[in-house]
Amino acid sequence: MTQQAIVEQIKQKRSFLCIGLDTDAGKLPPHLSGKKNSMFEFNRQIIDATQAYAIAYKPNIAFYECMGAEGWNQLELTVQYVRDHYPQLFLIADAKRGDIGNTSKKYAETFFRRLDFDAVTVAPYMGSDSVIPFLEYPGKWVILLALTSNSGAEDFQFISGPSNQPLFETVIRQSLTWGYPKNIMYVVGATKATMLVKIREIVPDHFLLIPGVGAQGGDLADVAKYGLNKNCGLIVNSSRAIIYADSTERFAEVAAVKAKEVQVQMEGLGFTGLMD
Amino acid sequence: MTQQAIVEQIKQKRSFLCIGLDTDAGKLPPHLSGKKNSMFEFNRQIIDATQAYAIAYKPNIAFYECMGAEGWNQLELTVQYVRDHYPQLFLIADAKRGDIGNTSKKYAETFFRRLDFDAVTVAPYMGSDSVIPFLEYPGKWVILLALTSNSGAEDFQFISGPSNQPLFETVIRQSLTWGYPKNIMYVVGATKATMLVKIREIVPDHFLLIPGVGAQGGDLADVAKYGLNKNCGLIVNSSRAIIYADSTERFAEVAAVKAKEVQVQMEGLGFTGLMD
Repeated sequence: MTQQAIVEQIKQKRSFLCIGLDTDAGKLPPHLSGKKNSMFEFNRQIIDATQAYAIAYKPNIAFYECMGAEGWNQLELTVQYVRDHYPQLFLIADAKRGDIGNTSKKYAETFFRRLDFDAVTVAPYMGSDSVIPFLEYPGKWVILLALTSNSGAEDFQFISGPSNQPLFETVIRQSLTWGYPKNIMYVVGATKATMLVKIREIVPDHFLLIPGVGAQGGDLADVAKYGLNKNCGLIVNSSRAIIYADSTERFAEVAAVKAKEVQVQMEGLGFTGLMD
Repeated sequence: MTQQAIVEQIKQKRSFLCIGLDTDAGKLPPHLSGKKNSMFEFNRQIIDATQAYAIAYKPNIAFYECMGAEGWNQLELTVQYVRDHYPQLFLIADAKRGDIGNTSKKYAETFFRRLDFDAVTVAPYMGSDSVIPFLEYPGKWVILLALTSNSGAEDFQFISGPSNQPLFETVIRQSLTWGYPKNIMYVVGATKATMLVKIREIVPDHFLLIPGVGAQGGDLADVAKYGLNKNCGLIVNSSRAIIYADSTERFAEVAAVKAKEVQVQMEGLGFTGLMD
């Protein structure tokens, strides 16, 4: 998917919301639980109900993988369903892969050829040859971990390296030699919204994937304040606050209410006025 | 599996060889190719033929994942086959996972509960809460990426941080607060054998998983020289040089010859004499 297609969808929906499909087989509404392809059925209803308010969906691969072959089948059904019904949606495999060249090539095959995702999240620790195989698919995207939203982010991502810049900044700068704003995005945790100022100096034109935004308008406003650019440049993810907002037969309807709330907050930020 | 059980096996087989099951559906011997469960059948024959010379097997998860549900089934069949026939073998999931806490927990479930691996390779970039969920399974191991053998290792792993120590060293030191020699090992690329001196100062008692050793005795001798400790403390991996040494119906027999060559080289290093 081109950057332009992403931007068009953002303008059309007045939203830069991504919904995380952290679909846990153990947390499905009781009426679905135990039925055949229940994870896919849950995803399908969530997507149908929320796709008017969201531009992207992000299955968290761990949740499918831990169900073995059955989980992989339901992941494939989910991707296929989106491709058949909502081809404009941006599909992110949240996989955080990264390995030596010939192995990253296999992961890229998995997510881009077998599964037809638009993007995959990639961990930078192993460097260039662990990332570049994902960049060799035209129209596909790497979303590189830079500054994550978890507590462990403090352990290594802020270590000062060359010119006293923190590791996450070195990662971003180095990756500018591997790709460009039309095939790389960065993960930047919303819990570090003020760090976006510095990051925007380095990558003014790239899209950023922001996890860790809850229902709190404050967080979202901060992220927008420091992160928006002329193409919007942000994809903000919410997972559990939307997909698990209700656990009755009305789960999808309630998810749609929650997604719409976020979309309305986003629209209220007036971001489309900033766009070209 | 306990450290003692690993050490016993090393003494008994006079080997610290791990065989990497980078089983590529596209590179199978022609007589297996296209048959049902051909990846598993390949693995089964390799394991039967080589298990006298190897203490560990390391399926590279990317190669199974890229075959979708069918690949996962064959990975499960492989693990089950080892568990049923050779329970003493140390089984490593080479997955290089690492994500926020609740997601790493799912990956740990996948590899330790669903698949009954003994160990999983984990990427450190996201810090403590991305690694600790894997350490919560008694008898299971994290093999943390420290210094990898690929060219991209130069990009970030040598960045100088606190006290001018390179990032890989900071990763090792930090991880000492998460686990101990009985549940953490480290990946250290054989292409950096002399770095083992420094690493052994920090972690004298831990096992190290060494990828990147080919058929060259020189490499192996260097790794042994700088890396051995009183429990052996090394697991040296070879993948393609063993499993793809021959592509005829005799592939497993030839793999056994190659594995035995490495075992004999290892025995020739006199390492068992150093052991308690």
